[in-house]
Amino acid sequence: MDRDRIRKLLEDVSHGDVEIDSAMKSLAGFPFIDTPSARVDTQRSLRMGIPEVVYGPGKSVVQIIEVVTALRGAEQDVLVTRVEASVAAEVLSTLGTGEYDEVARLLWFGRAEVPIVGKGTIAIVCAGTSDLPVATEAAVVARRFGNKVETLTDVGVAGIHRLFASQEILYSARVLIVVAGMEGALPSVVGGLVDKPVIAVPTSVGYGAALEGITALLGMLTSCASNVTTVNIDNGYGAAYVATLINRL
Amino acid sequence: MDRDRIRKLLEDVSHGDVEIDSAMKSLAGFPFIDTPSARVDTQRSLRMGIPEVVYGPGKSVVQIIEVVTALRGAEQDVLVTRVEASVAAEVLSTLGTGEYDEVARLLWFGRAEVPIVGKGTIAIVCAGTSDLPVATEAAVVARRFGNKVETLTDVGVAGIHRLFASQEILYSARVLIVVAGMEGALPSVVGGLVDKPVIAVPTSVGYGAALEGITALLGMLTSCASNVTTVNIDNGYGAAYVATLINRL
Amino acid sequence: MDRDRIRKLLEDVSHGDVEIDSAMKSLAGFPFIDTPSARVDTQRSLRMGIPEVVYGPGKSVVQIIEVVTALRGAEQDVLVTRVEASVAAEVLSTLGTGEYDEVARLLWFGRAEVPIVGKGTIAIVCAGTSDLPVATEAAVVARRFGNKVETLTDVGVAGIHRLFASQEILYSARVLIVVAGMEGALPSVVGGLVDKPVIAVPTSVGYGAALEGITALLGMLTSCASNVTTVNIDNGYGAAYVATLINRL
Amino acid sequence: MDRDRIRKLLEDVSHGDVEIDSAMKSLAGFPFIDTPSARVDTQRSLRMGIPEVVYGPGKSVVQIIEVVTALRGAEQDVLVTRVEASVAAEVLSTLGTGEYDEVARLLWFGRAEVPIVGKGTIAIVCAGTSDLPVATEAAVVARRFGNKVETLTDVGVAGIHRLFASQEILYSARVLIVVAGMEGALPSVVGGLVDKPVIAVPTSVGYGAALEGITALLGMLTSCASNVTTVNIDNGYGAAYVATLINRL
Amino acid sequence: MDRDRIRKLLEDVSHGDVEIDSAMKSLAGFPFIDTPSARVDTQRSLRMGIPEVVYGPGKSVVQIIEVVTALRGAEQDVLVTRVEASVAAEVLSTLGTGEYDEVARLLWFGRAEVPIVGKGTIAIVCAGTSDLPVATEAAVVARRFGNKVETLTDVGVAGIHRLFASQEILYSARVLIVVAGMEGALPSVVGGLVDKPVIAVPTSVGYGAALEGITALLGMLTSCASNVTTVNIDNGYGAAYVATLINRL
Amino acid sequence: MDRDRIRKLLEDVSHGDVEIDSAMKSLAGFPFIDTPSARVDTQRSLRMGIPEVVYGPGKSVVQIIEVVTALRGAEQDVLVTRVEASVAAEVLSTLGTGEYDEVARLLWFGRAEVPIVGKGTIAIVCAGTSDLPVATEAAVVARRFGNKVETLTDVGVAGIHRLFASQEILYSARVLIVVAGMEGALPSVVGGLVDKPVIAVPTSVGYGAALEGITALLGMLTSCASNVTTVNIDNGYGAAYVATLINRL
Amino acid sequence: MDRDRIRKLLEDVSHGDVEIDSAMKSLAGFPFIDTPSARVDTQRSLRMGIPEVVYGPGKSVVQIIEVVTALRGAEQDVLVTRVEASVAAEVLSTLGTGEYDEVARLLWFGRAEVPIVGKGTIAIVCAGTSDLPVATEAAVVARRFGNKVETLTDVGVAGIHRLFASQEILYSARVLIVVAGMEGALPSVVGGLVDKPVIAVPTSVGYGAALEGITALLGMLTSCASNVTTVNIDNGYGAAYVATLINRL
Amino acid sequence: MDRDRIRKLLEDVSHGDVEIDSAMKSLAGFPFIDTPSARVDTQRSLRMGIPEVVYGPGKSVVQIIEVVTALRGAEQDVLVTRVEASVAAEVLSTLGTGEYDEVARLLWFGRAEVPIVGKGTIAIVCAGTSDLPVATEAAVVARRFGNKVETLTDVGVAGIHRLFASQEILYSARVLIVVAGMEGALPSVVGGLVDKPVIAVPTSVGYGAALEGITALLGMLTSCASNVTTVNIDNGYGAAYVATLINRL
Repeated sequence: MDRDRIRKLLEDVSHGDVEIDSAMKSLAGFPFIDTPSARVDTQRSLRMGIPEVVYGPGKSVVQIIEVVTALRGAEQDVLVTRVEASVAAEVLSTLGTGEYDEVARLLWFGRAEVPIVGKGTIAIVCAGTSDLPVATEAAVVARRFGNKVETLTDVGVAGIHRLFASQEILYSARVLIVVAGMEGALPSVVGGLVDKPVIAVPTSVGYGAALEGITALLGMLTSCASNVTTVNIDNGYGAAYVATLINRL
Repeated sequence: MDRDRIRKLLEDVSHGDVEIDSAMKSLAGFPFIDTPSARVDTQRSLRMGIPEVVYGPGKSVVQIIEVVTALRGAEQDVLVTRVEASVAAEVLSTLGTGEYDEVARLLWFGRAEVPIVGKGTIAIVCAGTSDLPVATEAAVVARRFGNKVETLTDVGVAGIHRLFASQEILYSARVLIVVAGMEGALPSVVGGLVDKPVIAVPTSVGYGAALEGITALLGMLTSCASNVTTVNIDNGYGAAYVATLINRL
Repeated sequence: MDRDRIRKLLEDVSHGDVEIDSAMKSLAGFPFIDTPSARVDTQRSLRMGIPEVVYGPGKSVVQIIEVVTALRGAEQDVLVTRVEASVAAEVLSTLGTGEYDEVARLLWFGRAEVPIVGKGTIAIVCAGTSDLPVATEAAVVARRFGNKVETLTDVGVAGIHRLFASQEILYSARVLIVVAGMEGALPSVVGGLVDKPVIAVPTSVGYGAALEGITALLGMLTSCASNVTTVNIDNGYGAAYVATLINRL
Repeated sequence: MDRDRIRKLLEDVSHGDVEIDSAMKSLAGFPFIDTPSARVDTQRSLRMGIPEVVYGPGKSVVQIIEVVTALRGAEQDVLVTRVEASVAAEVLSTLGTGEYDEVARLLWFGRAEVPIVGKGTIAIVCAGTSDLPVATEAAVVARRFGNKVETLTDVGVAGIHRLFASQEILYSARVLIVVAGMEGALPSVVGGLVDKPVIAVPTSVGYGAALEGITALLGMLTSCASNVTTVNIDNGYGAAYVATLINRL
Repeated sequence: MDRDRIRKLLEDVSHGDVEIDSAMKSLAGFPFIDTPSARVDTQRSLRMGIPEVVYGPGKSVVQIIEVVTALRGAEQDVLVTRVEASVAAEVLSTLGTGEYDEVARLLWFGRAEVPIVGKGTIAIVCAGTSDLPVATEAAVVARRFGNKVETLTDVGVAGIHRLFASQEILYSARVLIVVAGMEGALPSVVGGLVDKPVIAVPTSVGYGAALEGITALLGMLTSCASNVTTVNIDNGYGAAYVATLINRL
Repeated sequence: MDRDRIRKLLEDVSHGDVEIDSAMKSLAGFPFIDTPSARVDTQRSLRMGIPEVVYGPGKSVVQIIEVVTALRGAEQDVLVTRVEASVAAEVLSTLGTGEYDEVARLLWFGRAEVPIVGKGTIAIVCAGTSDLPVATEAAVVARRFGNKVETLTDVGVAGIHRLFASQEILYSARVLIVVAGMEGALPSVVGGLVDKPVIAVPTSVGYGAALEGITALLGMLTSCASNVTTVNIDNGYGAAYVATLINRL
Repeated sequence: MDRDRIRKLLEDVSHGDVEIDSAMKSLAGFPFIDTPSARVDTQRSLRMGIPEVVYGPGKSVVQIIEVVTALRGAEQDVLVTRVEASVAAEVLSTLGTGEYDEVARLLWFGRAEVPIVGKGTIAIVCAGTSDLPVATEAAVVARRFGNKVETLTDVGVAGIHRLFASQEILYSARVLIVVAGMEGALPSVVGGLVDKPVIAVPTSVGYGAALEGITALLGMLTSCASNVTTVNIDNGYGAAYVATLINRL
Repeated sequence: MDRDRIRKLLEDVSHGDVEIDSAMKSLAGFPFIDTPSARVDTQRSLRMGIPEVVYGPGKSVVQIIEVVTALRGAEQDVLVTRVEASVAAEVLSTLGTGEYDEVARLLWFGRAEVPIVGKGTIAIVCAGTSDLPVATEAAVVARRFGNKVETLTDVGVAGIHRLFASQEILYSARVLIVVAGMEGALPSVVGGLVDKPVIAVPTSVGYGAALEGITALLGMLTSCASNVTTVNIDNGYGAAYVATLINRL
């Protein structure tokens, strides 16, 4: 809750400028925007100046349009994640605006060029080409959130000289996102090379004992490199979000 | 890394034949071929004279064509694994060359007949007809990698006399690949009969408690035969790769 | 429920020989013996002439003594399963009677020699010496339940000639119990050799991927031999119970 | 292996009637029928006079036709399990003979009416209507294997009076097959009511925590009724097979 | 939060009776009692007149004594759950007061006889004698929380006539707690007999496939009886808590 | 079983008004309605005056029509759960009556407006818009079962001020249903705010480590709020059923 | 690898100041300290000025003494994690120096007071008193690594007003570590309140469905708060390590 | 089976030198040695000239002594694996001969120095000091089986320069055994550096999400390096066995 607002509210009550019943409601918590199917929390994005993000899966075209319209009405940039191409096409044609990144499966409504506010570079390191959709989601989100981004692709641990060939990118980053499927070993190796926080993103790439990403996830959680933390399987968005917060410190 | 090259490089630097900046780059690791979406590690295949292998799933037709073209340009034979028939058809018609094995789901671009370089025979033993796609992948890859291959099919343990009827194949092999789904017991029985390394390949054949191959995998890992090692579920390719390395010793 | 008793009861009510309230109670179901901590169901053992069986784990020495005393008072033979040696010693010394099989961990209170009532032989086939406690539990229970028993030990699939060396035991059995840990492959092989029902007992023998018996259990459930059914891990008692029922048919 | 044949063979060798090389081959194990994709074990069905059974999934229409033709040529009745309606239609129209049970998903090629050879009745008890495909598979197979079958449907434990209303079927059976999904409690209750072997078949009916049948499977394996053994999830065929063996004793 | 208190607080601020800084703190949330190692939430128990409950495991003797002393100082009755006998003995001898139930592993500090405030009876139905510790925990807690309790023990589904023999207890209860391990089928059967809410408590009783209570838990969650909800494995306390809330409605 | 009917039956037998054979059948348990594929238990709904509920999945259009027709013939209201839109359309057009709720996937045959018989309000609290189908199933069922329902949507714990903004709904409910996917934390927070029973419904919303609802399920089962019980994943119907029973107490 | 050193080395080789063989060895990677049983990587701690950390479990008293002595000889501060009290006592008495924190199970050899170098405060928020050992490990490590630390204990989500009562600590932190067992919901709630990175640490506190911390771990990975990343179960050390890196940015 | 012996036997039967009954027995399979509790398969070790290996766990001191005595009587070297120190002491003092390796937990009865028969070197690479017991088991067994062995310890991927510092060992090996716990990434990195078969041994080292070795196991099975096969968790013996077979090719 916004402590300054609470203090102000109490002062207003104290001065008789605000009715008690009205204060009761205000204290109950806010702000948010109510749409027909959602109560969108706009508190954080307002305060931080980052776009509002809508989780796409399970939402109909109509629901996405409702939410985007409400947020755009509030002058917010909006990012919709995990949108299938066909859904994106419908939304874009109805709204007559917006951009769609097919690899990252992201819909964007807002400024064409978001200014850089992050203090350093976020490096996004990707083990294999099959992991690219997740790495691209991370890269696009990080850029839309105002960060300088550098990417390094297809540098899995079984051909580790490929990683070393581009290690300058690793050393110059302020925070790193490492994306890998299968055994998910890349974050451990990268984590051992740098002194910065590494956010590991397991992907569902692989088959059989890869268990749809569970194996990579478990491997990252038990990494012998101490500077690794982990997010959910295929959660490129979440990694970019945390990297953004860290990069603004 | 290629140690001889590093030594040569250092000598060149020592003699002033190579600039330091240039040496820095070289030391970073190589060789590999960069395509639009991949950094293909060509180091091992170059040195060993085996075909380059591309993992098909998650790659678009365009990406497969890019990689194959780049590798063929480097005069490499190329094998693409786990390619659906429809994808294969598109790739073949675009490239105007190559062969497709529908059971093994393998695309091949290269010599029609690879010479035999393996020292002995690789026996591929398959429990049931449903396991044939995996066993065939192993057989085709092993042959394309320059091995003599013999196969024995539908010899599951519940009718063990079928196995004994063809046991000469087992005794004459230098290394064996045993493919089985369901309870995955065949590698234990075969392992008990021979004195050679047995590579067990669990398959996702079965239902219910077969857990899409996990049960066979666990059974093979806990085999009471000491000469059994295991690869991932349905990984006929990996088994053939290791068998090739062993067969060249 | 005992249908003959219900019919008799209804006749008694019809003739006025039994009060309705009393019939209400009788109909509610019986017979059983109430002890301070248990309501022992004696219905089946009474009717079948087999010993009453008490599951030992989680029961204190006092509770075991209570139950045994109550059942012996009702002239029932009693078998207590999974009793630790120290608990058994206390119970035996308190009751001043009974026998304890240390390998099978079974306490027995009853006739020294139970007459054979099963129609054929129950073969108990055991994969390794580590599986012996479970196989012995099955063997002792089957014998106490009035069956002729033959056992075959240390005939795991990795040295399958050991099994074939004693296959006469397999062919002469009316029902078979096959006990195995690790990958649990033995029931499939035995099941493929005989035309009789095979009851598979997975054991918790093994380590790592054996998952305390889960792997053997899963393997037995997915056996490619159609004449195999499975009981719980280490459940030698349950296998002997079902084999007894089958052997009386 | 067929011991009488081995003895005969050794006698033949002893008398010089059979060459050693020929005996070597014979000893290797038989009989079976080789088709292009399968080595069909016909040993057991020949000896027992039951139909040959082919596991349908993963087999193409062509492979099914090959196997059926080979077996019919050997004058065997043939049952093909788990055949999708569209596959069945193709097979039937190509072969111009055979019957298909759509609920049980079974193809049958053989005698219209198999004579009863089982000694008693097999009761098939089914918890819910969603479990009917599995229960029907068990019922059809048991009947095709020469058993008298009685079925009891939709008698799940949450309305246990429905079970008691038809309990005569339970008491008159020689062996029982109990089919249930979700929590899989029905075999425990039925097992508690009868003195005969109960074969429990878990089904994949249910959602969420039912884990596609794993929950029912685990529940049946840990049944507090001692006369229950378990087969794989949805394995109506296997239950019928074992029940047939028991019913012939 | 206590809405009446908030309104009162706002009125006080409005009238100048309370300072803003002081109101800020009050609004932050309360009440609770700070001890050296815990911040005990006393809000609910104060309002409902039930004892405060402390979760014992992981707490040292010193920590338990601290918390009990703090709460007794606030004139609260206190229940400590899952206390080993040796820990209980130390706590009791240090405090010089309190009672310990060894089966339920509960420590009690408070009134000798809690008055009945629940509107009806809570029936506690227990499948086997091994489940008694959990059932007893539920029974003692329910009684200490002011409920009339009736218990029914050793009525597992494999001898279902034992349950029917005492079914009056089931029909006369306002809410039922059903405790079972192994396959956990009892709540489904009881749920099918009554029209009241059934709270199912899985126990860790069993071995092998019982998976330390997971099997019973899964079975209860997938119960085909619609009036069953489930709590955590061995959580007799939680079941009694919810039953108390329901019984006060 | 209906005890009054049993007593009456016994009296009739006692007076000779009922034949013993006839009483035998009656005692066997009833009532139920036999349809071609189901034995519908109508005992509870008859007694409680609530609609009969049919579980839709796995039932064909024909089977649904059969059951609905049979139950409507017995003058029962009928609810069919989890019906796909296409199936619903077929059923409705065949029967020429009924209503379908597309979000809740419920078919209804019965009174347009069910009278309120529950004593208080059932609050249905829903974490995210993706959880709405499950929450709506709970809401529609609860209303059809005669309860006053209030719903609160999109109040997940990551923006907890949204929950507090509508907390009056929480405090005024007699029983609460809390629906959440992903980490499933909402029931713990709501449970900490109210003194009423909370029924937690995990949903399969989420990806990766959400494990199709298992994570939310496990989280709810281990809730640190003692007033929470849990039902199966996505089981909005079951939660509404239990809430109805509680709300009638 | 240390790029500046490599460049320097190449320059030395270029100038003939270093022999090629010697350069070969240097390039192979360094620095580390070899002890009888370990090759301790000292590269990172040297560069960052943080203590060297030794993972205690599985190491004998002798091995711990060896490593500590070697590192202290290199003038490094040393932290040994997860040391049992008895092991710690032996090590301390042998070395005659060092400190042991019994709750955190940490051994410390180095400066009594480490200077603060982190830019802000690390808040450590702990759900329950049982989670204190893990939270304390995090707190002690963070302090020994040169950070200002504030802790907030026993503020689990079921009594969420306890958290709000101390929310200033949350708002004033630069990074937050949130420690919780059972359902692990606290990081989601805290994450929703702050704009800073939240490192979630699941603990093995709980029983049954808590699955020794797996449930909390899964819940944190699927948190609906986007600013949460996760480390391994009970890994207070790892959380403190990453928080330190972030706090130095 | 030993084909030469079978041929010889058949010739003997053909010549009348062997009776048919005697041949029947011989054909049944051999050789093995029967001890009171075991049927030891000596076929393979006799033929290959390697020691006989006895799996220690679950065997009593008496059983170990029986087996060792029987095998030593047959002039076999004997290795007993996984023997606790106390058991080893008893066995050694009773037999008055033998050696015990405490780290590897191996008992050895046989030649003090086994001659080298393997063609090349087996490299054993170990990730951390906690993995040493498993790596040492592999090393001792490989040496006792007649191989030259080189070991490389504490070279986990988080400090990968330690591995590169000793890479000559990797390049000079004919076959490699790589031992690692936690995320188990080392085999992938080593596999990427060499052209030889790599046998990966996961260890149970780690905590929490390491799942007692399951995570390392899964990671190795899904390794992106194609030359990796895997054995069971902690199975250093099995890895050495297979490496021996490969090294003799």
